[in-house]
Amino acid sequence: MTVITQERPAILPANPALVRAIERRISASFFSPSRTVSDAEVHELVRLATRAPTAFNLQNWRFIAVRSPEAKIRLRALAWDQPKITEAPVTFIIVGVQPQTKAIAERVRPSIEAGFMPPHMAQGWTDFADAFYAQHPQVAQDEAIRSATLGAATLMFAAEALGLASGPMSGFDPEGVAEAFGLGQDERAVLLVAVGHAAPGNWPQKPRRPVADVLSHA
Amino acid sequence: MTVITQERPAILPANPALVRAIERRISASFFSPSRTVSDAEVHELVRLATRAPTAFNLQNWRFIAVRSPEAKIRLRALAWDQPKITEAPVTFIIVGVQPQTKAIAERVRPSIEAGFMPPHMAQGWTDFADAFYAQHPQVAQDEAIRSATLGAATLMFAAEALGLASGPMSGFDPEGVAEAFGLGQDERAVLLVAVGHAAPGNWPQKPRRPVADVLSHA
Repeated sequence: MTVITQERPAILPANPALVRAIERRISASFFSPSRTVSDAEVHELVRLATRAPTAFNLQNWRFIAVRSPEAKIRLRALAWDQPKITEAPVTFIIVGVQPQTKAIAERVRPSIEAGFMPPHMAQGWTDFADAFYAQHPQVAQDEAIRSATLGAATLMFAAEALGLASGPMSGFDPEGVAEAFGLGQDERAVLLVAVGHAAPGNWPQKPRRPVADVLSHA
Repeated sequence: MTVITQERPAILPANPALVRAIERRISASFFSPSRTVSDAEVHELVRLATRAPTAFNLQNWRFIAVRSPEAKIRLRALAWDQPKITEAPVTFIIVGVQPQTKAIAERVRPSIEAGFMPPHMAQGWTDFADAFYAQHPQVAQDEAIRSATLGAATLMFAAEALGLASGPMSGFDPEGVAEAFGLGQDERAVLLVAVGHAAPGNWPQKPRRPVADVLSHA
């Protein structure tokens, strides 16, 4: 296998372990059948995933940990029969929820109680969110995808942090998954992320386009 | 200020620096006016951001680094006058591109040349993507948001890795930004991310909902 050398400027990172995690993360397809993921690890993955940012701190997401054999088969049938769904110890359905601005006051209350957020801002954020989403309904629609994807990305880094591999998938029938896993009217399945211990045979991280092809300046 | 203790199971992470990065990342509003971000840092942020996964390795994104005073003023006016856009040394417009399945062959060619991807898979992926997106046009629409958001999340971690702070924003007029910054018909502005050195006065990471409220099992 050819070793690929990619462009890299001379930057001394403050957190080299984080650079390595970004560079080494792979989209795994093969997971060890003999090594499980514990309840505590599932909990920790979600605890860390929810540290991702969301608009107005709405935290408009849910995480369904698919681990039972029956549920794995049900999910795999709705996701183009991808074997990793039954082979990985857990596949998370990352669910995005339409923004409910009524929830903002409750979501930011701990920040007010902690003393750093002024109490009047809960109402201010709610009023602003109501006005903003009314003016831009498409942005509100998209917020469910954005928040869930930010949570999914952070869950993948959380897996790296715990020494686990992850395999994200957008190739599934979202309506079918919504029905089969009882999602609400205001919810949508945004990404699936399989997590487990990597087995041999996974590809390395695939080479990327040159930075010059995707970066412009204004 | 009260110190917030949050639930945490006893897990020994493989990469504690990564756990700390996830736990310490804040959504910054205040950036040091005297400390800039270099060309090399901007390049490195985007190089690392593009290590995020995308469906079919499409890498369907663009990053516009808004750094000139004129462009900052233009962007701030389209983003509810948020001061961090003019105060941070750079704000990235993270642009999502509608999936163009014709591009898959070119995007995966380096993986074939590196020897780990079988040559026939380029056509296989293209055929599958054509069939999948034709059957699920909404998934194709959403793919632009998903890919750009995965890139934005990874850019935020890249900022952490370089010792910089980031401030993500979905509160902007996407059509106005598309027009003001010359986005194509198949492109959309998905997130803004301000990056710079944090100034005093930023809030800590806001407390999150309990894991039990967002995690379920199947």
